[in-house]
Amino acid sequence: MTIEEICQRAYENKYITAKLSTTQKDELINRAADDLVKNTTQILAANEIDMKNGKERGLSQGLLDRLKLTAERIEGVADGMRQVAALPDPVGEVSRMWTRPNGLRIGKKSVPIGVIGVIYEARPNVTADVFSLCFKTGNTVILRGGSAAANTNIAMIDSLHASLKSQGLPEDCVLYIEDTTHESVNRFMKMDKYVDLLIPRGGAGLIRSVVENSTIPVIETGTGNCHIYVDEYADIDMALRITDNAKTQRIGVCNAAESLVVHEKVAPVFLPRLAELFKGRVELFADPAARKYLTDSAEATDEDFGREYLDYKMSVKTVHDIDEAISHINHYNTGHSEAIITESYTNAQKFLDEIDAACVYVNASTRFTDGNEFGFGAEIGISTQKLHARGPMGLEALLSSKYIIYGNGQIRE
Amino acid sequence: MTIEEICQRAYENKYITAKLSTTQKDELINRAADDLVKNTTQILAANEIDMKNGKERGLSQGLLDRLKLTAERIEGVADGMRQVAALPDPVGEVSRMWTRPNGLRIGKKSVPIGVIGVIYEARPNVTADVFSLCFKTGNTVILRGGSAAANTNIAMIDSLHASLKSQGLPEDCVLYIEDTTHESVNRFMKMDKYVDLLIPRGGAGLIRSVVENSTIPVIETGTGNCHIYVDEYADIDMALRITDNAKTQRIGVCNAAESLVVHEKVAPVFLPRLAELFKGRVELFADPAARKYLTDSAEATDEDFGREYLDYKMSVKTVHDIDEAISHINHYNTGHSEAIITESYTNAQKFLDEIDAACVYVNASTRFTDGNEFGFGAEIGISTQKLHARGPMGLEALLSSKYIIYGNGQIRE
Repeated sequence: MTIEEICQRAYENKYITAKLSTTQKDELINRAADDLVKNTTQILAANEIDMKNGKERGLSQGLLDRLKLTAERIEGVADGMRQVAALPDPVGEVSRMWTRPNGLRIGKKSVPIGVIGVIYEARPNVTADVFSLCFKTGNTVILRGGSAAANTNIAMIDSLHASLKSQGLPEDCVLYIEDTTHESVNRFMKMDKYVDLLIPRGGAGLIRSVVENSTIPVIETGTGNCHIYVDEYADIDMALRITDNAKTQRIGVCNAAESLVVHEKVAPVFLPRLAELFKGRVELFADPAARKYLTDSAEATDEDFGREYLDYKMSVKTVHDIDEAISHINHYNTGHSEAIITESYTNAQKFLDEIDAACVYVNASTRFTDGNEFGFGAEIGISTQKLHARGPMGLEALLSSKYIIYGNGQIRE
Repeated sequence: MTIEEICQRAYENKYITAKLSTTQKDELINRAADDLVKNTTQILAANEIDMKNGKERGLSQGLLDRLKLTAERIEGVADGMRQVAALPDPVGEVSRMWTRPNGLRIGKKSVPIGVIGVIYEARPNVTADVFSLCFKTGNTVILRGGSAAANTNIAMIDSLHASLKSQGLPEDCVLYIEDTTHESVNRFMKMDKYVDLLIPRGGAGLIRSVVENSTIPVIETGTGNCHIYVDEYADIDMALRITDNAKTQRIGVCNAAESLVVHEKVAPVFLPRLAELFKGRVELFADPAARKYLTDSAEATDEDFGREYLDYKMSVKTVHDIDEAISHINHYNTGHSEAIITESYTNAQKFLDEIDAACVYVNASTRFTDGNEFGFGAEIGISTQKLHARGPMGLEALLSSKYIIYGNGQIRE
């Protein structure tokens, strides 16, 4: 099938998916979870081919680790799907309804978006995750995975198609673009005639390319240059605990902290203790004022303050006051997650008000920016743009709305 | 100033606008409304130049009519601004807040989007309308009007700048792109580094060009191929009244009906009466089954069913049942406004459920799709896309959200 044919089939299927009942959707997702586990042997065989190819192509250890499936990981993916099935169905909720003076009753009702395209890289678990989230919300989904996971993805899609078929539902509820060429992505991004939303999940390069070239509305997810600001009135023990957690609990994720901003008044107390804590574990890139207390650090360049290291590295900036901290963060951040550590009521409120980011924390680690940690039960990604959805996206982000209007003959004068 | 400089200035101003208090914003909007009226002479002088240029360039009567300002129209624009000032300030509302098992309190708070760009054509009233809506919601706005209204727009912008200055506020709360070349629009659309949202207001050509070329997130507004479906169980008198209203009350607007879908069972009764009602007023383009009863009609082509006439013209399609009506409408519509005329409870619900459009009506004219008619107090446009906002957009559509999270030392395990 050409890209256009795939998109057209999704388009033609969208009203079918949208009309499925909650029971039909939940039964299918549970069935698909069971089937994935049943098909473990086939999926692992396919995954082995991808792993072998990946090693031959010299993929990094990190990438190979993301790519690798085990029976246990497949069980984990299936459990995630069952959790999605167990969530309340958000489609069809009339969030408000009001009556106009002329008697028209107007209601705002949640509806599926229609056709959602997702472009992702080497994580095969995304295939099942994204399918269950989109299907639960009555959307038809077109997946386009990276070449590294091609065999694994196709094995998982085969399993999903078999589940749909066994429940008497059209296989076109999920379509997969097997063509892994660059041109196929470029063509896909122009299919606004058929596709309502495109979500790129992957590195900054992929996201930038989609933002620049897509004619389909896009939700940007991803990059996080997250800051911890240790205020003049910080509890120093708490600041150390949170900085350590935000930086080192998991380094490769978008909600990990990449930069530390320290009020000059606490620098002499806080920074030597931080140096001790991070010694041999985290490399620091600091401004001259901070380096007085961080003897092992390197000099920070302007680039360091804008960098998402995703590594045991962190930039350090000292500031004269909270206003400078806020300006610095609003200048360098990616609009993801920022935290202040303070006991000052006024500074806490000021930080919450003035920082421009999806998630702004007082006295907590940035690592909580996550659909599950927020209590959404599931996550399609973390939006760093301001339109439609911002921050962790649960099922709601996959819905649109329509106005339903009940009249009794009204005409406009 | 270059386009980049204008966008950068807006970007630098955005945190200033975002921090203004409700009182500051409302006082400024009221002041700006008064000033526009005070500057009537200057604005009308500028408008006269545009009108003269327009006539020389052979602009259509419709366009000249949109372009023309009078003292009365300026009063109307000012009244609209005062209405916006009188609306509740929607910025800073925490719509919900919940506590997680670990004690984190998470709230979802409404915030300005930041910098909003609006590209529009020959309607100078848009200059003041859009400014007041964006300013009320704490956004900095960049306007780019069409060349036909250049002098009028600049006179209005001068008045707005003077009002801002007199209140001690930065003029950069509203920026205007004077360069009316095509290249300036193209450059503007690529300024996603500085601009958070772009709204094109104008014809289908402008909108298509923005959707295809913008790297800034776009909200599509505009085109409406709206249908009236006269069901088997319609009240025929009501159907005639609503069809007449939806087609002829105002022909040049996006919520006017362009196509009529008629159940074959009521065609013999309804269509002859429609022919009589529309005789000499509305030209009909009908399918063969309908033409039996519409002797004056022309044969409808496939193109007719997809056309937004914006004229005293209407296409007519007969159908065997409501499913065919729904398929036909979902195929040809632009996702704007669709109405069913029926006394059948089941068919009304089915139509509301299955029609894919921003606004779906039972027994009312499509002409009600409008921010004021919906009770929003103001309107920035009518979105025909599914992301962020769908249907009439009031102040809410100009807001984003952020999560504010109150912790007491939480770290992620």
